[in-house]
Amino acid sequence: MGRWEPNARGRLAKAALELYGELGYEQTTVAEIAKRAGLTERTFFRHYADKREVLFDGSSALQELFVAAVAEAPESVAPIDAITAGLDAVSTAFEGRREHARQRQAVIVANAELRERELIKLASMSAALADALRRRGVAEPAASLTAEAAVAVFKVGFELWLTAPEEREMSRLMRESLDELKAVTARD
Amino acid sequence: MGRWEPNARGRLAKAALELYGELGYEQTTVAEIAKRAGLTERTFFRHYADKREVLFDGSSALQELFVAAVAEAPESVAPIDAITAGLDAVSTAFEGRREHARQRQAVIVANAELRERELIKLASMSAALADALRRRGVAEPAASLTAEAAVAVFKVGFELWLTAPEEREMSRLMRESLDELKAVTARD
Repeated sequence: MGRWEPNARGRLAKAALELYGELGYEQTTVAEIAKRAGLTERTFFRHYADKREVLFDGSSALQELFVAAVAEAPESVAPIDAITAGLDAVSTAFEGRREHARQRQAVIVANAELRERELIKLASMSAALADALRRRGVAEPAASLTAEAAVAVFKVGFELWLTAPEEREMSRLMRESLDELKAVTARD
Repeated sequence: MGRWEPNARGRLAKAALELYGELGYEQTTVAEIAKRAGLTERTFFRHYADKREVLFDGSSALQELFVAAVAEAPESVAPIDAITAGLDAVSTAFEGRREHARQRQAVIVANAELRERELIKLASMSAALADALRRRGVAEPAASLTAEAAVAVFKVGFELWLTAPEEREMSRLMRESLDELKAVTARD
């Protein structure tokens, strides 16, 4: 095999998710992932630091996308509407990836260490969103509360999307999740 | 020293927090904590499994208190008002403990492993609150969103309380945090 492998990264991720589902995350070795993908361990380590990174390498890009959309929303827009723009941007990035996301979620739910890692990523997202809102001139504690609300809406909306029929789009489910949050916290 | 030590648990907790603040959490040993408290290591381990547990042994009781107040709110009460009852109950438990809470927070903020543990405790609280709301007949996704909102309000309200002047009570700050969440998510 040559040094350059077409779509090695994607093939490794696909092989890893399959094996995590079949054997369990802990039982799967990098050697098995590479073999399933028809690649070498050396190639694996050119793309990922370890087998956990296969599951979390998209988290930073996701956070950046969310934060950028919030930062770039028109100045006149209310904080919660800047969040909606962020949720729309994130939804676009997940198009066509529902089956992949379902497989990933099943692996994470089954493993305490991975669930903790996911919590840390969500806390990091909340901190980055609060930061973006403060840069838009939103004061505390409104910035932190809006950011926490955004992550709550994203988390619940994401779970709705994972279990929803194929025709139900993520952006729509994120809006439903936000509307539900608005309803449960509505002023008297 | 005899087997029974008056208020050994409280003395150990006080000594531990002092030392975590002075030496850093990682640098502090159980031997030093016991010595500072005027007790033996053996006594320490009769009360705490390890030096981390000194910081988190109140988390389960806090969660139980919050959940019980939500569960026991009158049936007629809206989910978010059941949460308010929970926030009131929690606030009562923190009365007179602001300085202790400040010291604890400073230790946790300074250590990645402890910050992760705190995130896990908050996620556990959210799951337990969602469960209590479902038992009150609240449907999904409203139950999960209300629980996430409750934890967001608690988290932000707690930070407001840590930095507030002494006369500002936690229950009041929790209500302000909830009002702010209502304001930022308000329907148009």
